[in-house]
Amino acid sequence: MSGRGTREPVREPAPTARRDLRLVRGEETHARILERAMDLSSTQGLEGLSIGHLATSLGVSKAGLFAHFGSKEALQLATVEAARGVYFSTIIEPALLEPEGLPRLLRLCTAWLDYVDHDTFRGGCFFASASAEFDSRPGKVRDRIAETMREWLDFLESAVLDAIRLGHVKKDTDAKQLAFELHALEMGGNWARQLLLDPDALKRARTAIVHRLDALTVHRRS
Amino acid sequence: MSGRGTREPVREPAPTARRDLRLVRGEETHARILERAMDLSSTQGLEGLSIGHLATSLGVSKAGLFAHFGSKEALQLATVEAARGVYFSTIIEPALLEPEGLPRLLRLCTAWLDYVDHDTFRGGCFFASASAEFDSRPGKVRDRIAETMREWLDFLESAVLDAIRLGHVKKDTDAKQLAFELHALEMGGNWARQLLLDPDALKRARTAIVHRLDALTVHRRS
Repeated sequence: MSGRGTREPVREPAPTARRDLRLVRGEETHARILERAMDLSSTQGLEGLSIGHLATSLGVSKAGLFAHFGSKEALQLATVEAARGVYFSTIIEPALLEPEGLPRLLRLCTAWLDYVDHDTFRGGCFFASASAEFDSRPGKVRDRIAETMREWLDFLESAVLDAIRLGHVKKDTDAKQLAFELHALEMGGNWARQLLLDPDALKRARTAIVHRLDALTVHRRS
Repeated sequence: MSGRGTREPVREPAPTARRDLRLVRGEETHARILERAMDLSSTQGLEGLSIGHLATSLGVSKAGLFAHFGSKEALQLATVEAARGVYFSTIIEPALLEPEGLPRLLRLCTAWLDYVDHDTFRGGCFFASASAEFDSRPGKVRDRIAETMREWLDFLESAVLDAIRLGHVKKDTDAKQLAFELHALEMGGNWARQLLLDPDALKRARTAIVHRLDALTVHRRS
């Protein structure tokens, strides 16, 4: 992320270059902190993510980390924001490369399952853990998690609507209902994988999703 | 639970009766503690369930509560056990009153949704919260949660197998897959209700489940 590998070695940098290097290091540190924070909170929970624990895990001072974020809530919010970025780049972006309609809808679902299958976070889907942890804890963190998940469901729903509009799936399909079901099956796969350590969990979710979409697909005769 | 309402007033109880009364009070206290513990941990998490917090919430001494359970883990295990009892009495027991096969399978699903809809716990399904919280925390508490959920899925699966055996649903139905899907849809309903405060969440889960079962039902011609 830093791009340091392609940078020419600088022995005595000009003032501007020195500022740039500091900036790069600052961004690196920030990214590194948040990467660890996401990973820790996917297993220990966002509430279990203490600045002290994170500092120890990163080998930095607690005071330095506190100065960086200012409060535990700010750290939690930054962590949710980082996870939101990962969600976007690993699930939404690959799907946007697919043609609109059924191919994109299917890719959204399989990219979600791959995101869990590839151990993007040690604790499975970050937002599945964070949802369950924060659904009864009012505040900014809960609001941001809920907002992210609403956007995700809306995105799934709009992909279903595109598939209807393009004649890929049946016209009378209830897009909101289908988005709910596809997401529930994905979360069910994550749940059975993480809690029951069921090696077939994601395969089951995939089977259910493909079956559900297949039942709604308009099969054109060639 | 205590049965004290039907008990004759005892001014000077005999030694045996005195022991009985102590026993009744002890059971009452135990049940009351666990009821509060389940409710608190459904919102704050089982890890957030400190003996100190619980003692304050119940208006009893922390030392007394510690003496009662001995450790935080023992309190967590007792809470999981109590929630398991609630799960059994509110979901499994009503379903056992239904005839074997499809009626019982359907009742298992609707009883689950009712258990969430009736706010059995403030934080929604106890085991949905506890699963997400403990899936990455190895130990006895995680094991007991996973064991309970495996039993629940096995019970659902055996209800599907009965429905196949009795000719209520199609012979080629994959019972394990169907149990996974029904449970995922229920959990999805709980998730959308608790996090998104979606008033239609449980209705959506119910619709999906009825639709899924209907597609598998063997409709006899009269």
